[in-house]
Amino acid sequence: MTKDGWIKNLRKQKGLIFADVSDGSCAQKLQIVIPKNLTSDSLTYGSSVHITGKLSKSPRGQLELVADDVKVLGTCVVLDGYPFNPRTPHPPEYGRQFLHLRPRTNYTSAVLRVRSAVTKHIYDYFAAHNYTNIHTPILTSNDCEGAGEVFKIQPDSEETVKAMMQEGKDKDSVYFGTKTFLTVSGQLQLEAVCRGMGNVYTFGPTFRAENSRSRLHLSEFYMLEAELAFCETLQHLQAAIEDLMKYVFIQTWNSNEADLFLIDKENKPPLWLDKEFVTLTYDEAKQILEKKGSLFTEEGINKEQELTLVEHCNGLPVFVVKWPKAMKSFYMKECSEDSKKVDALDLLTPITGEVIGGSLREDNYDKLKSKLPSDRLNWYLELRKFGNIPTGGYGMGLERLLQVLCNVNNIKDTLPFPRWPHNCSM
Amino acid sequence: MTKDGWIKNLRKQKGLIFADVSDGSCAQKLQIVIPKNLTSDSLTYGSSVHITGKLSKSPRGQLELVADDVKVLGTCVVLDGYPFNPRTPHPPEYGRQFLHLRPRTNYTSAVLRVRSAVTKHIYDYFAAHNYTNIHTPILTSNDCEGAGEVFKIQPDSEETVKAMMQEGKDKDSVYFGTKTFLTVSGQLQLEAVCRGMGNVYTFGPTFRAENSRSRLHLSEFYMLEAELAFCETLQHLQAAIEDLMKYVFIQTWNSNEADLFLIDKENKPPLWLDKEFVTLTYDEAKQILEKKGSLFTEEGINKEQELTLVEHCNGLPVFVVKWPKAMKSFYMKECSEDSKKVDALDLLTPITGEVIGGSLREDNYDKLKSKLPSDRLNWYLELRKFGNIPTGGYGMGLERLLQVLCNVNNIKDTLPFPRWPHNCSM
Repeated sequence: MTKDGWIKNLRKQKGLIFADVSDGSCAQKLQIVIPKNLTSDSLTYGSSVHITGKLSKSPRGQLELVADDVKVLGTCVVLDGYPFNPRTPHPPEYGRQFLHLRPRTNYTSAVLRVRSAVTKHIYDYFAAHNYTNIHTPILTSNDCEGAGEVFKIQPDSEETVKAMMQEGKDKDSVYFGTKTFLTVSGQLQLEAVCRGMGNVYTFGPTFRAENSRSRLHLSEFYMLEAELAFCETLQHLQAAIEDLMKYVFIQTWNSNEADLFLIDKENKPPLWLDKEFVTLTYDEAKQILEKKGSLFTEEGINKEQELTLVEHCNGLPVFVVKWPKAMKSFYMKECSEDSKKVDALDLLTPITGEVIGGSLREDNYDKLKSKLPSDRLNWYLELRKFGNIPTGGYGMGLERLLQVLCNVNNIKDTLPFPRWPHNCSM
Repeated sequence: MTKDGWIKNLRKQKGLIFADVSDGSCAQKLQIVIPKNLTSDSLTYGSSVHITGKLSKSPRGQLELVADDVKVLGTCVVLDGYPFNPRTPHPPEYGRQFLHLRPRTNYTSAVLRVRSAVTKHIYDYFAAHNYTNIHTPILTSNDCEGAGEVFKIQPDSEETVKAMMQEGKDKDSVYFGTKTFLTVSGQLQLEAVCRGMGNVYTFGPTFRAENSRSRLHLSEFYMLEAELAFCETLQHLQAAIEDLMKYVFIQTWNSNEADLFLIDKENKPPLWLDKEFVTLTYDEAKQILEKKGSLFTEEGINKEQELTLVEHCNGLPVFVVKWPKAMKSFYMKECSEDSKKVDALDLLTPITGEVIGGSLREDNYDKLKSKLPSDRLNWYLELRKFGNIPTGGYGMGLERLLQVLCNVNNIKDTLPFPRWPHNCSM
């Protein structure tokens, strides 16, 4: 048989070279036994090789490839500036300086395989539950919907701008005839499709132009958003979220255990896989925190408080439900029993705090009209006018989910090409 | 049982109302039999309903729901401005004026279900073939790589711009410290990951800031890009492409035949599903076209010529391979037998012409260095310096594939929210 891959490790023993070779597709490496006469100076850590040989069992019963022929495809000389070596442990911050080369490290390749697996499990889950996958747009003329700061776009070419310029337009609106932003959420568009096609979801890039460099924020990240048709209660929504979370965690521990241990050898499947998530109302959460001496503001629950609540619930994920209206978005449904509250939820977990946010959507035309932040959203209001249905939905940040699953402290290590202020290399 | 959905059609007969109800998740509708005493004025085309009843067989043997109770959830009054009705055929251009409501039409919902199915089949294909799914970034500091015009981005908030401004920077580079664009292709980043993880692919939004309103162009579209590790020949690449294309077409005809007929009742599975694709060199293609009296320029093969070639090959997909170097991108590998040509390919099909483009990648460090268009791509060159491997890859426009599969003339009807010059609503 033949094996293509990269040398991950080399050991000399009794006139033989033992090389661990990986093709990058899984955590496992194949041990290659190389007779001395087949080695060369170019056979080094990091080099790419094409090995021909016979598969056999080592004295310890492990499969290994005994080489008949070794061809070095690409050399790798550390002295020429290759930033990694097999003996030094490289902290994740170090790898971030070499985005183009870090997929060659065990750590980053394991994270990216887990990310790919989680992505696949999410698609499988929604297909099995009969949701339609909708590609909501990145470019949008909607204002920011109160979800934070946005990026705006323009054609780069001055020639294009000149050719398309019309009277009364500025550069920001010359191309599309309207000021155009990068999406902060596909929810509003998803709601439009849901009111014709039933359960739908979208899973793709989302943007924030915030000047934040925290371990939990990125300027570009992946968001999963689902909208459930004929959804009338928060319990309905919570059950769907809990089911998805457990499915993804169980499937990924089944499919990628070796990768999860490569990332953190102390990691283990979370305690809550066979337990019910906790539900607290916002008022209950506030009481618990105030008893612990935590100060409250009108901003809602801060990161430290989120993590305190999860700890209080013994590390179980916590739904915080029924939030004060003023803290949440215009489209959230007023609670039937308390007009100062909305049927919103946050799901809190260890490590990241909030990982999912969701709500029932206001389906009363007049109530929605009175809260609509902009005439540009008249189309959204009109959804309630024709064949309207009750819906609810949620959004989940993929990178935060990966932090929880992989036990990764900094969000920048959960994706191949992180973007944050002053960092957009490649 | 109960059924939630929208009224697609109403017929009165012998004191009964027959209603076709769809929940939007598939092409099929359920016939509801409603006794006259359960009807009301609000039970109209387009209204949303919750039906309780008993499933039984009609005299013709068809399943139908005999209603015990009918609840109208959301009324739909055409006179209030609902733009669709069941008796008028609505051409696709008409639907494009009502992006928020057109998912309620049979045509658009069928297209979106096919799009969702194709997407799922693509993920399944690559998972089964052991490719890792990589989320390449939307935001990039790479220049345009010669792939056409680009959009640039800025924070929208003047406050953010002010707070982040540094000396010597302009607004375009204030946020990331470098001018930042929307991606035109994830290929270069994918090549970096491939050189550590083996076969990889990316599937997501891509952008062009061109002032083009043709039936084949969008400003935002979905692109599938795959990079094959240890790929040394165009034949290897062509076999992978042909296998994928046939898989996606066969699977989608199996999973969504009813939707494909809803979109175009004359559509049928293409002739080529069990035939080999044709391969022509660029020189052969040129000869064929010149014999037919077609004029050649240095721009390559135009759209009309592409379609002529496909017709010449009896409607079979045609690979055109080995292109003049000057017509193609800097990263394409020089042919070993002719240094004026590169190992590039275009795949041409009926309706759209080019649907896939690909190449082997130049893996000779010195040759690549001499063609590198910008110092900003030094990281790309460096990929060839450490443990390099031969790779090849391709990019496929999802919307064009959907045009071919669904027999849709205008690309704007293959996605939920098309963006093109002066059109970015919602």
